Amino acid sequence: MNKYDLIIIGGGPAGLTAAIYAGRRELKTLVLTMNIGGQMTLTHHVENYPGVDMSDGTDLALKMMEQAKKFGAQIELNHEVSAIEIKDGDYLVKTSGGEFEAQAVILAFGKTPRKLDIEGADRYLGKGLSYCATCDGPFFKGKNIAVVGGGNSALGGALYLSELGQKVYLIHRRDAFRGEEILVDKIKAKENIEIVLNSVPSGLEGTDVLEKIIVKDVVSGAEREIAVDGVFIEIGYEVKADFVKGLVNLDAGNQIIVDQDCKTSAEGIFAAGDLTQIPYKQIAISVGQGATAALSAYDYIQKKSGKTTVKLDWGSK
Amino acid sequence: MNKYDLIIIGGGPAGLTAAIYAGRRELKTLVLTMNIGGQMTLTHHVENYPGVDMSDGTDLALKMMEQAKKFGAQIELNHEVSAIEIKDGDYLVKTSGGEFEAQAVILAFGKTPRKLDIEGADRYLGKGLSYCATCDGPFFKGKNIAVVGGGNSALGGALYLSELGQKVYLIHRRDAFRGEEILVDKIKAKENIEIVLNSVPSGLEGTDVLEKIIVKDVVSGAEREIAVDGVFIEIGYEVKADFVKGLVNLDAGNQIIVDQDCKTSAEGIFAAGDLTQIPYKQIAISVGQGATAALSAYDYIQKKSGKTTVKLDWGSK
Repeated sequence: MNKYDLIIIGGGPAGLTAAIYAGRRELKTLVLTMNIGGQMTLTHHVENYPGVDMSDGTDLALKMMEQAKKFGAQIELNHEVSAIEIKDGDYLVKTSGGEFEAQAVILAFGKTPRKLDIEGADRYLGKGLSYCATCDGPFFKGKNIAVVGGGNSALGGALYLSELGQKVYLIHRRDAFRGEEILVDKIKAKENIEIVLNSVPSGLEGTDVLEKIIVKDVVSGAEREIAVDGVFIEIGYEVKADFVKGLVNLDAGNQIIVDQDCKTSAEGIFAAGDLTQIPYKQIAISVGQGATAALSAYDYIQKKSGKTTVKLDWGSK
Repeated sequence: MNKYDLIIIGGGPAGLTAAIYAGRRELKTLVLTMNIGGQMTLTHHVENYPGVDMSDGTDLALKMMEQAKKFGAQIELNHEVSAIEIKDGDYLVKTSGGEFEAQAVILAFGKTPRKLDIEGADRYLGKGLSYCATCDGPFFKGKNIAVVGGGNSALGGALYLSELGQKVYLIHRRDAFRGEEILVDKIKAKENIEIVLNSVPSGLEGTDVLEKIIVKDVVSGAEREIAVDGVFIEIGYEVKADFVKGLVNLDAGNQIIVDQDCKTSAEGIFAAGDLTQIPYKQIAISVGQGATAALSAYDYIQKKSGKTTVKLDWGSK
């Protein structure tokens, strides 16, 4: 059996920071993650992370990973967690790459872009279909583009893409946008953005790459074909927390509820980063929560093993 | 009158991060602080700040300051705040360098080492008397040193100084230490550390620089002179929050009570960093709280002026 003091699920800024702190507290720490950096890697210009002038999100993530490794954390990529079970007072974490046991668990697997649930969505991924305007926008200079969604990400994405592309179709299922008024005004002022309300995507077509999107009017039921080279899906993010339902308390939006010490409702399970109910999803905030979760987990493990703990005022090893 | 959207009191990691975030949200932001970096600057080797390999605390602080300035925050040094008053629904901040007004205030002035309250404490500061073993220890190689205190900082300081110095006297007012057992054991095993319990400093003497410390036995009342070249005071840290008493709720230790959005009990006043009741005082955690406080303040200001706000999911400008 692979036994650890602490298992961290997720390798974004929250998970990697937790790994740095747990490693420095000499906890035997395992990070199980699908990738390094999470949503950070979708940003090319991180300029609001304190202490780092300007960085590519991926570079910043890799630096955090190196620090976590340096302090002894073991990082296992491509491990999708399917279940967490209680076993003899510890936790058993079942993954696609094996089972692991630990005294404490930190949930830090972030949010995932909500996927478009129509035929062809998988087939055209990376062949015209994208979930990230910032990442993939530059591939569509001078092209016709559709953006699906009505929130702030969709509005911001459409505005950004309208600067790059020939024409942008902004497709939204409701009769009004959910995003900020100021963004809506900007959208309306753009001559190369066509607003397609009350409409949902019903199909994607193209021989090798995506060539058109079919949208259905939810009021009349009529379908319309729109010739596009790119389709950007911006229909929000979700926390894929189904595997911890029943184990920890979630809010209405499936976010994991934590207190100020990053404790969940389950003893020995902590959470940090975008997947918590705490508002404002930012790298700096995830990093703070990752540190808090690791120090809380350390205290929990010490108490569990009957050791006293000391809350150091700052910075000491 | 100097009018701002937001005044941040304190220029450590929490205050500077708040300034970065407020600046990027285009709030007219003023940072009032006694210095840049706060307690960060006492650490020469910051190696647990995620994304930065290893840094001198001062360098990291200066980088954060540059970022805050780049995004438009105005930073005023050597401004000691004496009072915050409510004025026409805004806040009036009175300082040693003038008065300033803002819609919202972030308290981020951290903790301050508790000062030794005996005669000569001011006179010998920097002439043998120090409040920071990490900072000033290297000046006392091969010398005789006294450390005053019984908590973890004092124990850690004494251990560190025993490696550098000839002899270390560890002076504590109680009959037992408050710090971690493992540290006490290490202290006891050190041949060049003499433990002086039930004793408080009652005097400091020396012609130009500090030459001896006088300690008084609190049980017998007897006084003893100890010849030392250096005295390190490690009697804890305090939040100098007297000027906000009555304005915001404090805990028993004078720490400012905040919720998960870094809101205090007073509308429009936020707090972040070491001065809050949140445990674990760390740069990474202060940075997270600074970002949260700034975004909360932004939302507050937007609402106050009747504007809608949008909580961006991440990283967008």
